[in-house]
Amino acid sequence: MKNKKLFKPLLIMVVMMGFCIHTRAQQNKLVVRMARLVIDSAQLDAYRAALQEHAETAVRVEPGVLNLYAVYEKNDPTQVTVFEIYASEEAYKSHLRSAHFIKYKTATRQMVKSLELIETVPIALATKMPHSNG
Amino acid sequence: MKNKKLFKPLLIMVVMMGFCIHTRAQQNKLVVRMARLVIDSAQLDAYRAALQEHAETAVRVEPGVLNLYAVYEKNDPTQVTVFEIYASEEAYKSHLRSAHFIKYKTATRQMVKSLELIETVPIALATKMPHSNG
Repeated sequence: MKNKKLFKPLLIMVVMMGFCIHTRAQQNKLVVRMARLVIDSAQLDAYRAALQEHAETAVRVEPGVLNLYAVYEKNDPTQVTVFEIYASEEAYKSHLRSAHFIKYKTATRQMVKSLELIETVPIALATKMPHSNG
Repeated sequence: MKNKKLFKPLLIMVVMMGFCIHTRAQQNKLVVRMARLVIDSAQLDAYRAALQEHAETAVRVEPGVLNLYAVYEKNDPTQVTVFEIYASEEAYKSHLRSAHFIKYKTATRQMVKSLELIETVPIALATKMPHSNG
């Protein structure tokens, strides 16, 4: 009888521990990257439109593309940074093979003067941003 | 009678339009910034711990601090980037006056070798990251 009474709380504990371990494992798998680009100043509007469409599409249709923030610098609009979070290494590789990524790369080839891809390690990923493709 | 039937859908339309205008106005007020820092290589662990605590605290306790992503570069761990989103200019100013920001600035003064603050304009802010202070 005593054992029976303990079963339910123990089961709940085991499920909760499993959930915590799962969440931690998912976080550890995250791939966090930055891209720094310099854009041809004569093609800024076209480049921004292509990048915006690409980022929104990728986050909307690819389950493993969690975050694509893209900004340009106020003091030098040719300087663009993209802050990228993927659920895993496989999700990142799958993104590079996607039709929308290949379309974006092809369309912007003549607009990008330089591209630096930076692998990073997160220190903090604190957010309460509304979920959005925009 | 005809007018009465139209009232409900028209009301819904007006409320929805109001919501869209409100959302757009909120988005236009966003302040999106980056900080690029170079950290003393002998104090990396202490610096990361202080920045992590600061970022998590700010997003948790300040309603207008929407996003603080902080990363270091795999190839050069002294290079740190913080990607910051505030709800408005007032939220950013209020953040600079907060007790936890002043504590972080004071604690890390001797760890930071250089600091570049960059005002940016968003091209895309696409995310479906789980909300987290971590």
